[in-house]
Amino acid sequence: MNRTTARIISGVLGIALGLLIAFVFFADLNKGEENASSNKSKAEKVFVPYGELDEYYMMASGGHSGQLFVYGVPSMRKIRTVPVFTPDPATGYGYDDKTKEMLGGYTWGDFHHPAISETAGDYDGEFLFANDVGNNRVAAVDLSNFHTTDIMSLPNMGGPHAGVFVTENTEYIALPTRFARPLGDEYAPLDKYEEEYKGVVSMTTFDREKKKFDLAYQVVLPPWSYDLSDAGKKMSSDWIVMTTYNTEFATTNQEINASQHDRDYIVMMNWKKLEEAVKAGAGNDIKGTTMIDPRDVKGAIFAVPVAKSPHGVDVTPDGTRFIAAGKLAPMMTVFSFEKAFEAIEKENFKEETFGIPVLGYEDVMEKEVDPPGALGPLHTQFDDRGNAFNTMFISSEVVKWNIESGEVIDRTPSYFSPGHASATEGDTVSPDGKWLVALNKIAKDNFLSVGPSHPESMDLIDISGEKMEHIMAVPVDPEPHYAQIIHRDKINPIKVYEKDEDRENSVWKQEDARIERKGNEVHIYGIAMRSKFIFDASAERQDAVSVKQGDKVFFHMTNIDLDQDITHGFGINDYNLNFEVQPGQTNTLEFTADKAGVYPIYCTNFCSALHQEMSGYLLVEPK
Amino acid sequence: MNRTTARIISGVLGIALGLLIAFVFFADLNKGEENASSNKSKAEKVFVPYGELDEYYMMASGGHSGQLFVYGVPSMRKIRTVPVFTPDPATGYGYDDKTKEMLGGYTWGDFHHPAISETAGDYDGEFLFANDVGNNRVAAVDLSNFHTTDIMSLPNMGGPHAGVFVTENTEYIALPTRFARPLGDEYAPLDKYEEEYKGVVSMTTFDREKKKFDLAYQVVLPPWSYDLSDAGKKMSSDWIVMTTYNTEFATTNQEINASQHDRDYIVMMNWKKLEEAVKAGAGNDIKGTTMIDPRDVKGAIFAVPVAKSPHGVDVTPDGTRFIAAGKLAPMMTVFSFEKAFEAIEKENFKEETFGIPVLGYEDVMEKEVDPPGALGPLHTQFDDRGNAFNTMFISSEVVKWNIESGEVIDRTPSYFSPGHASATEGDTVSPDGKWLVALNKIAKDNFLSVGPSHPESMDLIDISGEKMEHIMAVPVDPEPHYAQIIHRDKINPIKVYEKDEDRENSVWKQEDARIERKGNEVHIYGIAMRSKFIFDASAERQDAVSVKQGDKVFFHMTNIDLDQDITHGFGINDYNLNFEVQPGQTNTLEFTADKAGVYPIYCTNFCSALHQEMSGYLLVEPK
Repeated sequence: MNRTTARIISGVLGIALGLLIAFVFFADLNKGEENASSNKSKAEKVFVPYGELDEYYMMASGGHSGQLFVYGVPSMRKIRTVPVFTPDPATGYGYDDKTKEMLGGYTWGDFHHPAISETAGDYDGEFLFANDVGNNRVAAVDLSNFHTTDIMSLPNMGGPHAGVFVTENTEYIALPTRFARPLGDEYAPLDKYEEEYKGVVSMTTFDREKKKFDLAYQVVLPPWSYDLSDAGKKMSSDWIVMTTYNTEFATTNQEINASQHDRDYIVMMNWKKLEEAVKAGAGNDIKGTTMIDPRDVKGAIFAVPVAKSPHGVDVTPDGTRFIAAGKLAPMMTVFSFEKAFEAIEKENFKEETFGIPVLGYEDVMEKEVDPPGALGPLHTQFDDRGNAFNTMFISSEVVKWNIESGEVIDRTPSYFSPGHASATEGDTVSPDGKWLVALNKIAKDNFLSVGPSHPESMDLIDISGEKMEHIMAVPVDPEPHYAQIIHRDKINPIKVYEKDEDRENSVWKQEDARIERKGNEVHIYGIAMRSKFIFDASAERQDAVSVKQGDKVFFHMTNIDLDQDITHGFGINDYNLNFEVQPGQTNTLEFTADKAGVYPIYCTNFCSALHQEMSGYLLVEPK
Repeated sequence: MNRTTARIISGVLGIALGLLIAFVFFADLNKGEENASSNKSKAEKVFVPYGELDEYYMMASGGHSGQLFVYGVPSMRKIRTVPVFTPDPATGYGYDDKTKEMLGGYTWGDFHHPAISETAGDYDGEFLFANDVGNNRVAAVDLSNFHTTDIMSLPNMGGPHAGVFVTENTEYIALPTRFARPLGDEYAPLDKYEEEYKGVVSMTTFDREKKKFDLAYQVVLPPWSYDLSDAGKKMSSDWIVMTTYNTEFATTNQEINASQHDRDYIVMMNWKKLEEAVKAGAGNDIKGTTMIDPRDVKGAIFAVPVAKSPHGVDVTPDGTRFIAAGKLAPMMTVFSFEKAFEAIEKENFKEETFGIPVLGYEDVMEKEVDPPGALGPLHTQFDDRGNAFNTMFISSEVVKWNIESGEVIDRTPSYFSPGHASATEGDTVSPDGKWLVALNKIAKDNFLSVGPSHPESMDLIDISGEKMEHIMAVPVDPEPHYAQIIHRDKINPIKVYEKDEDRENSVWKQEDARIERKGNEVHIYGIAMRSKFIFDASAERQDAVSVKQGDKVFFHMTNIDLDQDITHGFGINDYNLNFEVQPGQTNTLEFTADKAGVYPIYCTNFCSALHQEMSGYLLVEPK
C-alpha cells in the first residue's frame, strides 16, 4: 500500500467508530462554547426586520417530498414550497388539467439536486432544473412565476441521482444514473449484471422560449453507480465530470461489497465531441433515444482513478481543477484539467475498461488535502478568495482550505452529519463568499422533539471572514440534498399573469361567463373575482351550476383580479377537488359528476374580507 | 337605527374603502418607524442559539394543504409538516397500507382549526384534532409520535368550518357545518333552500385508549352558515357557542345577499342536556347517525342576536363571558353567560325561530368595545392578566383591551390583514400571556417575491408587557387559519417505537427475514437497518426480490434500528412507490407488480454514512 491508500479507512467498522467519536466529541464539546455576546451578534446577523428583504434566495431540493423549497438567506425563513414532482392541493398543483397531465399519474418524486440555469457560468435566474431519482424524470421550474413548466421522463435510467448539473451556457442538463439496469427497461437476472446491466447518462436540452425539454442523446457506460457530477467552466467548459462507486459490480449488500476497491473512478466526458458525433450519425436507437457507446466515439470519454466511493466532484470557479470528496476516504483530491488534457493529448493511458481509456492517478492528481481527523468529505463549495469548503459527514464539520496551497484555514462543527453544503453563488464562476449553508442529515436534539422521526437540519455559517462563524441551526422537512443560493437581484418574478384575451378558455368580462353543454359534457367558462364566482352571467343564480349525474364537467376559470397575491382557490365540498387560479391565470378542472346531490363550491385561498362569502353550489341531479 | 346599528358598516363599499385606507396607512407609516436599537433587541428575543430549544410548540393548521404545521416559538422556525388529510411522500403517508386506508382515497383536505385535547380546560398535550372543510372529516394527531392516528368522515355536513373546538375535558369535539345542504346528502333544488337545506352540528367523541373517533350525535339547525365556535369553561363548561352568518338564507351572491341583516345570531347549545336527551332516546336516524331536532329537546338550544356576520366567538379564560368579533361590524361584543342563564331561567325569549328560542340582545350583552377606526374584528385571544387581543382584518392591526373595563390599552399594526391570532396557551383557562402570533392573509411585499402568488405571513408579537411589541413577520405556506401554542413541557413524544415481538408482520431478527408465496401473493417479511435491506435471510442475495409480472406484492418492513431519528425510507425506482419505517415501526406496502423488468429499491431517507449503499432490486419476470 502507498501512503494514500494506507490512509483510506477500510470498510464499515472504521466508519461506525468515526461516527461514534464524532457524535460524542461535537455533541458535548461545542454546545458549551456559545456565549451571550456572540449570540447577540449572531442574532443581529440573521434578523431581517420588517420592511427589509433577505439578500439571497436559497433554492433547496425537497428530496422525497418531490418539491422545491425556497428560503430567504440569511433569515433562513422558508418562503415557499414550489410543487415539482408531487401533487400539492395548497396550490392546486396536479388538480388542474395542465399540471395533472404534466405529472402523468405520478404521485411523488425524489428531487435531489437543483440547478439554476447559467449564462457564461453564472446563474442567470431564469429557470431551475430538478432531477427525480425515484421515477427517472427531469423538471424545469420557471423562476418568473415559480411554477413547474415542464417534466420529461427519461428511458433507460435507474435513478438520475448524479444530476442535474448544467453546462456553462445551459447547453445541456446532464443526468447520470445511479443504479444500473438493463437497457430498454428490459428484464435480466442479476447473474447477468456485468453483461446486461448498464449505467446511462442522459443529456437533455431545454428550449427557453418553448419552455420544453428534449432528450438529445444518452451515453451507455459500465454498470457502475454514478453518484454526483459537475460541468466544467471556462477552460474546461466542454467537459463533464462524474464520480462513481460500485466499480466492484456488487449485486447485493453494497454496504460491504461496493466498498472493496481502494479506488473508484471519475469519468470525464467531452459533451462537445459527443454532440458532434451525434450530429454525424453515431449511436443506436434504444427506446426512441440515440444511445452512444464509448467504443464508437473515441476521444470523448475517459476515466481517472480516485479514492474509494467518492461522493461529490466539483469544478473550481476558474475551471482549472476538479475536486473529489472522498466519502470513504478521509481526504479531498484536487485534479488538474490541464494535466488531464495533457495525458489525453499524449494518449498516456494506463488501461482500458469497457472501451474507456483510464488515465494515471498520479498524472492527473495535483494534490491530496487531508486535514487530520476530518472524516467523510462529501462535497466542495467555493468562495471568491480562492478557498474551498468541504462538508465532513462523519466528523460533522466544515473545513475551509486554500485551493492553491492546500493549507487548511479553519474548521467549524456542523450539527450533525452534513451532506452537501451550498455557498452564495457557490457553483458559479464568481462565488460571493458571504454565506454557506450546510445541509445536515441528522438533527439529534437540536429542536423541539416531534417524535421518533426528526426534521433534517441546516446550519447557516458566515464565511465572509478569515474564520468561519456558525450562526444557527434551522429545521427543515425531509429532505434537502442540495441547494443553490442566488442573489435576489437575479430573480425577477412577474407580478400577475398578463391579461390575454386570446387565451383559450379565458373569460374577462363578467357578462361573458357562460355554460355550454355538448352532449354529456358541461363546459363552464367562469370568472373568479373578489368576492364571487360567476359561472353563468345569464342565470338567476350566477354562482350555481346544475348538471346531471354522470356528466363530464369542465370548470374553465379565469381570475380577473389583476392584483398581485390575490389568488382564488376553488374547492368542491365532498368531491375531493380543489384547484387555484392566480391573478390573471386561466385553469381548467375536469371531472365526472358521478355523485348526485348538492355540493358547495367555495374559495379555498383567502382573498378578501368577504372571502368567506365567496361560494356557490354544484347541483348534481340524480340519474 | 340605534347607536350600535348605526355604527355597523353597511355592505361592501365601506369594507373596500376601509381596506384601501388600512393598506395605505399601515404600509407606508410603519415601515419607517423601525430603528436599529429596537431591531437589535427584537433580534435577540427570537434568536434561539444552538443548544437551546424554543419554549413553545405552535400547532398551525395548513388550510388547503391539508396538513399540520409545527413551529417553534419564539424562533418561528418550522419544525415539521405533519401529514393529516393529504398524502405525503416525504413521510410515506398515504402509501403504506394503514395510512392509505385511513385516507380512503381522498387526496386533500381543507384543515382550518386545530384543537389540542384538554383536561380541566387546559391543553394536556396528548392529541390534536383537525377539521376538513373540504371533505367533511375530522382527524386526530397523536402528539406522542406526531402521526395522524384516526380520520372519520361525517355525513350530512357541508364543510365543518366552525370546528374543531373541544369541551373542557375533551368530552366532545364539536364540528358545526358552514354550508347548508339537504340532509342525507340528498339532492334538492336551491328553490327549496329554506325547507330542505339544513345546518348541522356534529358532536364527536374520541377514545384516547383506542385512539378512535365516534360520532355521538348530530344536531339539525336552520340553514344558516356556522362560522366559528368555542366551548365554555368552568361555570359555562356545559355549553358551546357558535357564530352564524347568512341568516338571510341567501342562495346566490352571498357577498351582497348574506350581508343584509344588521344582526345574525350566536347559537348557544347545552351539550350535557343534549347528551341526556340522546341517552333517553331522542333523535332520528339519518344516514346512520342520531339526528337531534331542537324542537324535540327543549331547554338545550338558544340564539342570541349579534352584530352582523360575526367571525370568531371566544369564551374568556374564566368562563364567564363570550366575546363575538364582528367582522362586518367594527366592534367586539362581550356577552355574559350569567345574564344568558338568567334570561333562559326566566324564559325571557323575544321570539322563536326554527324551534329555537331567541334571547334579547340587551339581556345578554354586557358591553360593546369599539376602538375608533378599528375595522373588521375577526378573533379574540387572551392573556393571564384579564386582557383580550383582537385581530382587525380590515385595519390590519391587533387591539389589546381590558375585558373587565372595556378600555383599549394598546394597538399594533399587523402585516397584513390578520385572520385569527393565537396566544401562548390562549384557549385555555390559564393563558401564559407571553407571545401572540397573528395569522395574516396578505403578505404584500414582506418577503422576497415568488411570483404572482405570495406566501401567507405570520406576525410574532410580544404581549408580555403593558404595550405590545411587533417582533417580526414570517412567511408560511398556504394557509394557516388557526393555531394553538402549547408550552413544550406539555408535549412528551416517544423516542422510538417499542420493540413489540408480537406485532403483526414484524421481524426483529435478521435470520427471520423471509419471503412467503401464497398463490399470486408474495409476502416479504423484511428488515430495514443501517445500512441494508434484508428481504430473505436464506437467499444468495438477501436484498433482492423476484416476483412474476402480475403478482400482488406485500413488503412488510420493520426498522430494527431502535435509535431516535434513524428513519429508513423505501423507494422502488420507476414504480411510483415510496414509504418509510420509523425506528421500531413496522409498515406494509402493497402493490401489483404489473410492469416487468428490473427495479432498484433504495433507502429514500438519509440514515447513515452508507445510506447511498442501502439498496436492493425488485426483479419482475415477464409473464
